[in-house]
Amino acid sequence: MTAPIRLALVGIGKIARDQHVPAIAANPDITLVACVSRSGETVDDLPSVPDLAALAASGIDVDAVALCTPPQVRYSAAAEAIANGWHVFLEKPPGATLAEVAALADAADAAGISLFASWHSRYAPGVAPARDWLAARTIGRVTITWREDVRVWHPGQAWIWEAGGFGVFDPGINALSIATHILPCPFLIERAVLDFPANRDAPIAARVDFRDTAGAPVAMDLDWRQEGPQSWDIVVETDQGTLRLAKGGAELTFPDGSTPMSHEGLHGEYPGLYARFAEIVQAGTSDVDVAPLRHVADAFLRGRRVTVEAFDE
Amino acid sequence: MTAPIRLALVGIGKIARDQHVPAIAANPDITLVACVSRSGETVDDLPSVPDLAALAASGIDVDAVALCTPPQVRYSAAAEAIANGWHVFLEKPPGATLAEVAALADAADAAGISLFASWHSRYAPGVAPARDWLAARTIGRVTITWREDVRVWHPGQAWIWEAGGFGVFDPGINALSIATHILPCPFLIERAVLDFPANRDAPIAARVDFRDTAGAPVAMDLDWRQEGPQSWDIVVETDQGTLRLAKGGAELTFPDGSTPMSHEGLHGEYPGLYARFAEIVQAGTSDVDVAPLRHVADAFLRGRRVTVEAFDE
Repeated sequence: MTAPIRLALVGIGKIARDQHVPAIAANPDITLVACVSRSGETVDDLPSVPDLAALAASGIDVDAVALCTPPQVRYSAAAEAIANGWHVFLEKPPGATLAEVAALADAADAAGISLFASWHSRYAPGVAPARDWLAARTIGRVTITWREDVRVWHPGQAWIWEAGGFGVFDPGINALSIATHILPCPFLIERAVLDFPANRDAPIAARVDFRDTAGAPVAMDLDWRQEGPQSWDIVVETDQGTLRLAKGGAELTFPDGSTPMSHEGLHGEYPGLYARFAEIVQAGTSDVDVAPLRHVADAFLRGRRVTVEAFDE
Repeated sequence: MTAPIRLALVGIGKIARDQHVPAIAANPDITLVACVSRSGETVDDLPSVPDLAALAASGIDVDAVALCTPPQVRYSAAAEAIANGWHVFLEKPPGATLAEVAALADAADAAGISLFASWHSRYAPGVAPARDWLAARTIGRVTITWREDVRVWHPGQAWIWEAGGFGVFDPGINALSIATHILPCPFLIERAVLDFPANRDAPIAARVDFRDTAGAPVAMDLDWRQEGPQSWDIVVETDQGTLRLAKGGAELTFPDGSTPMSHEGLHGEYPGLYARFAEIVQAGTSDVDVAPLRHVADAFLRGRRVTVEAFDE
């Protein structure tokens, strides 16, 4: 029984309050000790400081920070935290560029601290059983369909439409975080088409054709213009039937129509992430898988850009 | 004294004949034993086979292959070579995507063979002394200027203008291969602007603002529309004066105006590459640094795209 990890939460917005705070509260290995917020927000009457320098000067004993700030400012905060000797939990995506993530991973190694590049969708309840089942199968074809209404899910988020804001790859990277986790072979882009609204610097839709290293096609369809029923589905045809993951990994159906029994017993995404974070801190290791972000960068690198109708909210 | 590495050269074009063949001939640790060419080309009356499957079936004893084929088809050849147990020398860039390079590196590790992602500009004569000199300096500002006339240097190369053809980052990746090698700290993109001709799917110019992890700005200016004098320069301002690398690393000038004495004694780029390849094969290791390609992918990921005047040859 080791002492709980004393954690400060940085960036007290919706994701921090809705997901991080309850997951931390439910984890006996982690204790929330402070909040870091420019606007002075806090939770549960904990001390709140405006920035990491103030946290370091506060005298509060801190072992780790979780960064819930936007990706554009995440690197500098993470680098400062590592320099202070704090373990770091990064929200997804772990950086605005791949070079940022590589620099953080090297700095964490050199400092002997734990860095966690979290991918919350990997902890959706259907994902682990899907991965286990697929490990022993031969993959025939994979279809990834992520179609949602951006007006419903990202209202007023101007940054998401700027260059570097990822556009439809912001939800799409969740699909990629699941696919890279459950499929037994790595997969590689063969071609990609990215649809940019005439008045925006980020794509509203994309079609990416991958092939895995064993030869199976992996087709990904991302679209932010979906009205009516929304889709966050991964369908994997195998030599032993078709597996279906729906609702972003929450619902799993095996070829015989059965669904895994263990749904109720599972934690949910953020409790799973914090359990993993405590595990790597206690083990003195890091967990930094850049594969989902690398696919997004590769899609921008290789993809053909098409201009489509302007998008206004 | 180990037996020479028996090498087959794959893709017998201009780069193979001009650079690879003489460098191999001058290296006692490597013997060229065959050529692989769809069109039946060969050098020095060596056996020529159309593809790697034919090479494997030929009975010719091969230890390694050097791939001089275009980047779009390099992955499949490299994967096949690794599966055959051959060491692999990759021309730059090492893949069409970062995921390809990662998959090859993993496959090479698993097979126990050596993979070399070569960056020829790192073996230009000014590069090693520049790196040594900069290692002990504090960097103030770095300016990378790569301005050349695409009509002169890339006449008729249609693929370079296609999506995934990199455009002006095809020469620009040489600059990045030097900068990532000589600068003491990693550097990260803060902003990027990519100029796409209205009729092309790849950029003709780019301005990328990086900052190194110690805070120094690194400004890169790439332009394919340069007429008159051409520039392939890296200027590094330090606490002990300004170092200048010109002509793609061929010419180095220290702050006191001196140039290193050892130019004449150095090998040149491709002899240096083959010496390194022999070294890693004999040591049983790989040398795969993706940093230059990662910066290019990051520039496409984060960069704002601007449409400029159509380009016709």
